[in-house]
Parts: sequence; structure tokens; C-alpha cells
Amino acid sequence: MDVTQVLCMNGGNGDNSYSNNSLLQRMVISMTKPVIEHALRNLYHGLNFPKTLLMADLGCSSGLNTLLVTSELVKSIDKIRLQSGQDESPEIQLYLNDLPQNDFNNIFLSVSRFQKSLAKQTIRNSSSPPCYFVGVPGSFYTRLFPNKSLHFVHSSYSLMWLSKVPEMTETNKGNIYMSATSPPSVIRAYRDQFQTDFSTFLKCRAEEVVTDGRMVLTILGRRSDDPSSKECCFVWDLLATALNHMVVEGLIEEEKMDSFNIPQYAPCAKEVRNEVEKEGSFTIDHLEVSDVNWDASTDHNLILSEDDGHGYNMGKCMRAVAEPMILSHFGETIVEEVFERYTNIIKDRMSKQKTSLINVTVSMTRKA
Amino acid sequence: MDVTQVLCMNGGNGDNSYSNNSLLQRMVISMTKPVIEHALRNLYHGLNFPKTLLMADLGCSSGLNTLLVTSELVKSIDKIRLQSGQDESPEIQLYLNDLPQNDFNNIFLSVSRFQKSLAKQTIRNSSSPPCYFVGVPGSFYTRLFPNKSLHFVHSSYSLMWLSKVPEMTETNKGNIYMSATSPPSVIRAYRDQFQTDFSTFLKCRAEEVVTDGRMVLTILGRRSDDPSSKECCFVWDLLATALNHMVVEGLIEEEKMDSFNIPQYAPCAKEVRNEVEKEGSFTIDHLEVSDVNWDASTDHNLILSEDDGHGYNMGKCMRAVAEPMILSHFGETIVEEVFERYTNIIKDRMSKQKTSLINVTVSMTRKA
Repeated sequence: MDVTQVLCMNGGNGDNSYSNNSLLQRMVISMTKPVIEHALRNLYHGLNFPKTLLMADLGCSSGLNTLLVTSELVKSIDKIRLQSGQDESPEIQLYLNDLPQNDFNNIFLSVSRFQKSLAKQTIRNSSSPPCYFVGVPGSFYTRLFPNKSLHFVHSSYSLMWLSKVPEMTETNKGNIYMSATSPPSVIRAYRDQFQTDFSTFLKCRAEEVVTDGRMVLTILGRRSDDPSSKECCFVWDLLATALNHMVVEGLIEEEKMDSFNIPQYAPCAKEVRNEVEKEGSFTIDHLEVSDVNWDASTDHNLILSEDDGHGYNMGKCMRAVAEPMILSHFGETIVEEVFERYTNIIKDRMSKQKTSLINVTVSMTRKA
Repeated sequence: MDVTQVLCMNGGNGDNSYSNNSLLQRMVISMTKPVIEHALRNLYHGLNFPKTLLMADLGCSSGLNTLLVTSELVKSIDKIRLQSGQDESPEIQLYLNDLPQNDFNNIFLSVSRFQKSLAKQTIRNSSSPPCYFVGVPGSFYTRLFPNKSLHFVHSSYSLMWLSKVPEMTETNKGNIYMSATSPPSVIRAYRDQFQTDFSTFLKCRAEEVVTDGRMVLTILGRRSDDPSSKECCFVWDLLATALNHMVVEGLIEEEKMDSFNIPQYAPCAKEVRNEVEKEGSFTIDHLEVSDVNWDASTDHNLILSEDDGHGYNMGKCMRAVAEPMILSHFGETIVEEVFERYTNIIKDRMSKQKTSLINVTVSMTRKA
């Protein structure tokens, strides 16, 4: 799997239209599919073959492939139902959630096309389950659904986005994210914000999910205990390098740079486990950490244009994620310059070293 | 109430951004408020003070005032709850439905602003009910929700829009809607299409609404038994006049004009009653017909710009409703000319005569 794709996905702050997403989506789905299917099987049996299933995809984004996850959920349910010898498909209501700024119009226009293709893809001789699509605008760090109304919650590559930039007592000098050179108080502020946000997320979902309901979350994370570990910070360090050069050249004011930080935290599995146990409403059924290489073409035979290098693709992709933040903080005039420099730096580094991307996937059940 | 506003609302085919809508919305709400409140009171008591209420507004459009209806529903529930001596507010999930082409992004961006204002408007000393907003893309002539999932359905000025232009065996020569000069087979085709569509609507809702759930529909209608009565056809006759002039002048091809018909049917109360009784799942609690004058300023002291006449406003408004249809059928080049002529014809007619607009409002309960 290629980080250039991963970072484009579901980032509440980005324009997620970069077309390579389709490859990543398929990879993420194929990686987490066994976990999701296991959770759905237990859900469907545990609830004694319910006639209606309400499922939510939180942080669904609005790219070409927003509906792919949904498609897998529906196909899995259809397969499980047939294996369980149930004649009648449950009706499935699919809640697609993202921030109100997300392009829901784009999703809604794809829904009817998608439903036709889904009908073809569900198991032969099985009538495809009736699906009702619904858009839910709002932050998943707030309540989004009535009490005890959801059977299944899914979220992929969204929960590393914090609700806001952490409040810092010291300047994160020269950095825009946690880094080896960040003051310990900055690292703490990031960790605290993650704990607050993730615990709020769990509290909200605990109220919304029915007893024995399931939740499968995949979060951009890390293996190391150290939040400033290179495995999650590298890509932001390179953006900081580009911005710092522009500060030195007088193109960006130093105070502007000092006050710019990325609202993201990539947790390790232990941190995820801790918050779930502290909140107390969910039992962890499964917690796994998986690696994906930055350079997807080596591992996955992805076809990249010969004219482009990975650095170019990566730069394009990071631009989609970071541009809205750069734009609103630094203004329009420097945007082109920033991303030209950033792309060049990425190209250079990617030609010299290999780095992995870490996924933390957790599957849990709502306690009684 | 001014027809210039009415016709801009909730027309699945129009751009509903015309700002006068706010006045109309308030009028329609104040007219139907007692009916809605009565239905909500019976619902809330009948379901023994439920903790969650799922309500849908079908054909919600996306103007400035889409959320006004919703606001009234929530405020009514809050009032009824307090009068019933219930301490705890039910959680309300509000499904806003329209065609997938509707601008849901616009609605979703207003939701958080709206929720703050709603909190201020609910009864003092009462904590405002928790509301969860959800967008539902799709035609209300199809299933939109799972079985037995809705408690209350509302629809205002949407159900006169047919699912398609009726299939005709004869040409509706010189007309674009039912008219005194339409062949009887055209009138029958329109009536059949309304019966098919409204009956499909009722069948779908019958599956979706819980036992003892309620539905309040307001439809642009007519008093007369004759579907080609002037009370509902007048405004389209004037557009036909403009188009016919352009056919005579060679600006529009005759075949193009012959194949253009408006997919709308304004039913009388008897037709509404007949379809509800034929479908059989709902009991009619209340059925009323109300009049509103075309010339709102006489009755309601609406402020109109001195430069504009009612004809001008009416023309602007009808353009919002009809332009997408004219554009897709006749092409871009003639649009300006059509609406200049149409506005002039409307101005002329409105200075000479008074016409009423008819609303049919029906309130019903889902049988066991």
C-alpha cells in the first residue's frame, strides 16, 4: 500500500478526490475485511438475524470510492446471511458521516449508480439486500445519532484527525507536528488532545450503539511508544523543512510558522486499548497493527506514470491533504511555492530511503 | 399568500433560492401548524411518550428556509411534551429528503447555525430536544427508509410534482400542461400518472411508517373537479402562450413545443381521499382545502420593491421553477427570450384579474 494514497483518504481537512484512492481503498478493505466480516458475523448471529441493520461509516469522505466500504459491508452481510441459511435479507440503512463541509452532493449523485452495481455484485441467485443511504453531517466527536440506534460502526483513516490543534504552552519551534525536536510539553499536548478526542468519540458511540453492537476502527498509527517517532512524523517533517526554508528566505513570517501545527495524532495500539478500557463501554475483540510500505509499486505492482516519480505522486497527494490548512493559515500567495518545494524534498527523500506506514485496527463490542 | 412564492418552493425541478420563500414558508407553516400540531399531539400520546422520534420532511428543497418546517416540528414536540408533564425531551432524528440533485451541501452547512437558533427558540426553562439531522437523497416515489422506522412524515408543496411527464397517446397541441384545449386523453394521462404516483407514494410510506404513526401532506391542488380548471393551469397557460408566440415566429421548432409538457398535477381533495382509501393503510383524520390569493401584497402586506411589479416577481419566480425544464428541453439559446416574454405576459394578466391558489392538506394515521 502506498502512503501517497493513504494520506489522501478521509482526512477531514483534505480534498480527497485524488484518483489513486481507489487502489488504496481496495487494499485497506482487503486488509480489514476479515476483521469486519468476523464482527458482522458475530453481530448478525448475536442479534438473532435482525430484519433491519443500521450501519454507519464515520469520516466517509467524498471521493470516487466513498461507497466502496459500504459495498463491502452489504456484500458481507449478504454472504453471512446465506451461510446462516436465512432466506430473507435484512434491510440495511447506511449512514455516511463526515464534516458538514464534505461534498455530500457528490456522494448522493453516485448512490443510484452504486446501487445498480451493488445489485450485480451481490451473490448470484440472492436478491440484493435493500439499502437505504443517508448522509449525516457533523463531527464524530459529537453525538450524531439517537440513543441505542446503531448496530455497526465503521471508520477508516479518520480518527487520527484531532478535533482541533492541541493547545500548547510552548512554541513548537521549527516544527508543524510532533517531532524529535518538539518540546516535551508539545508532545504532551498532542497526546492529551488525542486522549480527550478519542475518549469523547467512544462516549458518544457508547450511547448510540445497541447492546452487542460492533465497531471496527482503522486508524493511521505507529508501532513505537514514542509519539514523535519517525514512522508517523516523517511526512510532516518534510513539509516543515519546506516551510522553514521559506522562513529563512523571508517568504514566510516566523510567527506564522510558529503558530502552524497539524491537528493529527497517530496512536500506538496500547494507547487505543487504554482509552477503550478507560471509557469502559466496549469490549475489545481484536486489536492488530499492520505495516504498509511507502513505496507501493515494489510490493503491489501499482502502475505509476513513467513521467511521475513516487515523490511527485506523494507531493500531489500531500497537497490535497495539506493545501486547505496551508491556505487558511498562510494565505493564497505562497501555496504554489510551498508545494513545489515540498514535492522536490519528498522526491529526494523517497529516492533514498524506505519507510513504513502503520495501521492500528480495533474491533469491539458494546457491553450490555 | 403569493403564488410567486408558492411555486418556487420544493419544486423538485427548480432552483429554490428565491428569497421571498421565507414569507411563504412562514405562511404555509402558520396555515398548516394547527393540523401538524394536532397530529403530533396524537402521535406523542398514542406512542406513550416515546424516547426517540424519527421524522421525515419529504421534498425538503434547499432554500434558506428548508429548516423552518423542521424547526416548527421540534418546537411543537417540545411544547406538547411540557403540556403533557413529561420531564425528558425525546431525541428527534430529522430526515431531510429530496432528489439526489438537491443541494444537500447547502442544507448541511446551515444545520449547526440552525441548531443554535433552535436552542434559543424552544420554550424557556426547557432544555431543547436533542436533534439529529440526516439527509436522504432519492425520489419519494420509491422506498427511502427501512420498514416501520418512521413516526412522522411531513411534505409540503412537493407531491404535485409527478415522477415523470405522463405518457400521451395524442399530442397536447399548443399546450404544455392540462388546459381547456387539451385532448381528453391528455387529461386522462395526467390523472393516471397522478394516481399511479400518489398511490406508489402511499404504498412506500405505509411500509415505512410505524403503526399509529402520522403523516401530514400539503399539496398544491384545486377545488374544481375538472383537472384542466384555470385555478391550477393558469400559470402554465401563460408560459405556453410565450412559447407558442416563439413557435409562430420560427424561434422554436413546432415538434419541440409539441413534445414539451410539465410533470405536475394539482389534485382536488376528492382525488386525494380516493387514493388514500384505495391504498388502505392510512386513516384520514383531517382533509382541508384552503385558498390563497395570487396577489399577496393585498392580503398580507408583503413588501415588494417599487421598481418591480407582481408580474416581475412572479416571472422571476416562475423562471426559477421552469428554467431547468426549459433549458434541458429547448436548449440554452432561447431561455432569456422565453422568460422575458413570459414575464411580460404575467405582468399584463396580473394587472387585469385576481386568481387564487388552492392548497389541499391531509392528515392521516397509519393503521395497525
